[in-house]
Amino acid sequence: MKKLMALVFVGSVSLVGVAKPITPKEFRGIFYPLPKSAPVPASNKITKAKVHLGKQLFHDPRLSVDGTVSCASCHNVMSSGGDNRANSVGVKGQKGGRGAPTVWNSAFHSVQFWDGRAKDLEEQAKGPITNPIEMGMKDHDQAIARLKKIPGYVDAFKKVFGKNGLTIDNVAKAIATYERTLLTHNSTFDRWLKGDNKAISESAKRGALLAKTVGCVTCHSGVNYNGPDLEMGEGFYQKFPLIEGSEYDDKYDLLSDLGRYEVTKEDFDKNKWRVPTWRNVALTAPYFHNGKVATLDEAVRVMAKTQLGKTLKENEVEDLVAFLKSLTGKLPKQEMPELPPTPSETFFRE
Amino acid sequence: MKKLMALVFVGSVSLVGVAKPITPKEFRGIFYPLPKSAPVPASNKITKAKVHLGKQLFHDPRLSVDGTVSCASCHNVMSSGGDNRANSVGVKGQKGGRGAPTVWNSAFHSVQFWDGRAKDLEEQAKGPITNPIEMGMKDHDQAIARLKKIPGYVDAFKKVFGKNGLTIDNVAKAIATYERTLLTHNSTFDRWLKGDNKAISESAKRGALLAKTVGCVTCHSGVNYNGPDLEMGEGFYQKFPLIEGSEYDDKYDLLSDLGRYEVTKEDFDKNKWRVPTWRNVALTAPYFHNGKVATLDEAVRVMAKTQLGKTLKENEVEDLVAFLKSLTGKLPKQEMPELPPTPSETFFRE
Repeated sequence: MKKLMALVFVGSVSLVGVAKPITPKEFRGIFYPLPKSAPVPASNKITKAKVHLGKQLFHDPRLSVDGTVSCASCHNVMSSGGDNRANSVGVKGQKGGRGAPTVWNSAFHSVQFWDGRAKDLEEQAKGPITNPIEMGMKDHDQAIARLKKIPGYVDAFKKVFGKNGLTIDNVAKAIATYERTLLTHNSTFDRWLKGDNKAISESAKRGALLAKTVGCVTCHSGVNYNGPDLEMGEGFYQKFPLIEGSEYDDKYDLLSDLGRYEVTKEDFDKNKWRVPTWRNVALTAPYFHNGKVATLDEAVRVMAKTQLGKTLKENEVEDLVAFLKSLTGKLPKQEMPELPPTPSETFFRE
Repeated sequence: MKKLMALVFVGSVSLVGVAKPITPKEFRGIFYPLPKSAPVPASNKITKAKVHLGKQLFHDPRLSVDGTVSCASCHNVMSSGGDNRANSVGVKGQKGGRGAPTVWNSAFHSVQFWDGRAKDLEEQAKGPITNPIEMGMKDHDQAIARLKKIPGYVDAFKKVFGKNGLTIDNVAKAIATYERTLLTHNSTFDRWLKGDNKAISESAKRGALLAKTVGCVTCHSGVNYNGPDLEMGEGFYQKFPLIEGSEYDDKYDLLSDLGRYEVTKEDFDKNKWRVPTWRNVALTAPYFHNGKVATLDEAVRVMAKTQLGKTLKENEVEDLVAFLKSLTGKLPKQEMPELPPTPSETFFRE
């Protein structure tokens, strides 16, 4: 009987496959290919020189108190745009409480950080510099005093932002501008949406359809699969776990970090989180704010259960994983920036 | 009287400048422009694929126990090729006892490490991976087991080194091959040696001449300004301080690290060190094995006193610094390598 069921099941899948092929039309108004460029605020236009300056700053460990941690240390743009650790490691070997979200396509988030406490990339960029367990600078003045000792930066800020241009706001603007270039185009799913029918497997197509029918797309939709496109600064949050009481609450310690509540202190924000992007999600294990879930298939099981109250069949998990893997984009080719030196002088005297 | 002396002195300098210009001929057999490429051992030919694999490994923090430290963390090829700290910082915020020597042009050292304990780049590359305060892997087997979990590396090692090619010796060969490409050509001094008479200042020329007449070049000669060109594996060492008893011994704690003695346990190796390169020395502050000297001018004073028993005049120090600054080469343009992922899987489970 079991065998018969399996046969029937396989049969029905391929019947669906034959009778009604899954096409990009299914996802109109839900999923979109990544736009060519990211939204740019009027107050921070993109220029080539600003991108370059931001790239230098992003990779410069001198923005951390002891010269060991740069933005890139936890947001590795040679790989996932994160650090693939449950807890990021900052200066003096200190561990943060949440994982580093990927910087790839972060320009398409309408708010920044897991809890949305920064309204845009500019505001975000200032945070880690003075976070005691991340880059550990005493204050932003200390960071600026440092940069002022580096002739190449003094010149570059003057060129990009004008006289007296070396300010923390402009540091943030430069970094944000660089980040707006960190886009991963040409995922196989994007190519499929654009008409390349062979770009993804049938399993990935079934997974995409499941994401729609099962309800994942309530939150994971839009160009960055992170909710409706909102004005910058307006966040799209969801409670996680939405349905408390599953075995995962304890197993993966899902409730102890109160998320957005820590920012607003409003009861209705308890355990709410900015909806994370699905782009490159196959590259960004471990999963969730605390990185307690090690694999993508388990993350899919957890989400189905905690957000939709569903226990997925293993072939459904497989299809969803195949779909999510198809959202891995191409990392753009980047030249390493040369960091401006302080010739003949020591920066870090201890 | 003092004024007159000063005038006479200035006069004699400019007379020398006019009467007998300093030309590259002065340095025949002493200084050389950097050769186009580095020496390559017959046992480890350079190929493009091997350089690329080495570049990936060099930048991959997964070679450290907790995924936070790559070779590039302490040998930053976006800047000095070192970390510009007195003590490098490894995993868990631990500090090493010696500074990280620059990786730029390290292919021109006949031995590696401050104490010459590795005979070549291949041997060197294996050291930090298992050093408990650097990358902290338990042993090389652990490193290889890790790399075997990364499909992109499995493929690349197969392609570059053949079947069963993923071994620690081949990891080291790939990294060493990449390092052989880390050369900084076109320093202004190299250009001057090659005939561009305007490439350096008169002060730099006087400094170069001083380096010869005062005796620095006894050790700092050759293509890498680190002693005679020896066979790979044969080191050129010098005692430092050679003349004990100056105020610097205590001031900069010059005697407590016994250097090469720690490798050989031979009395005559006490306080001996591999002669470091002068190339890019303006970029690699702080100075000496313990990084206790913060500026290049002070490093020049210390060396003159401890190695040659001389107290330099300040204008001599200035000229020598101008010369040393002219040895800063051009950092080659490099594309960031893309590190092979482990899709949907967590590498570091804690």
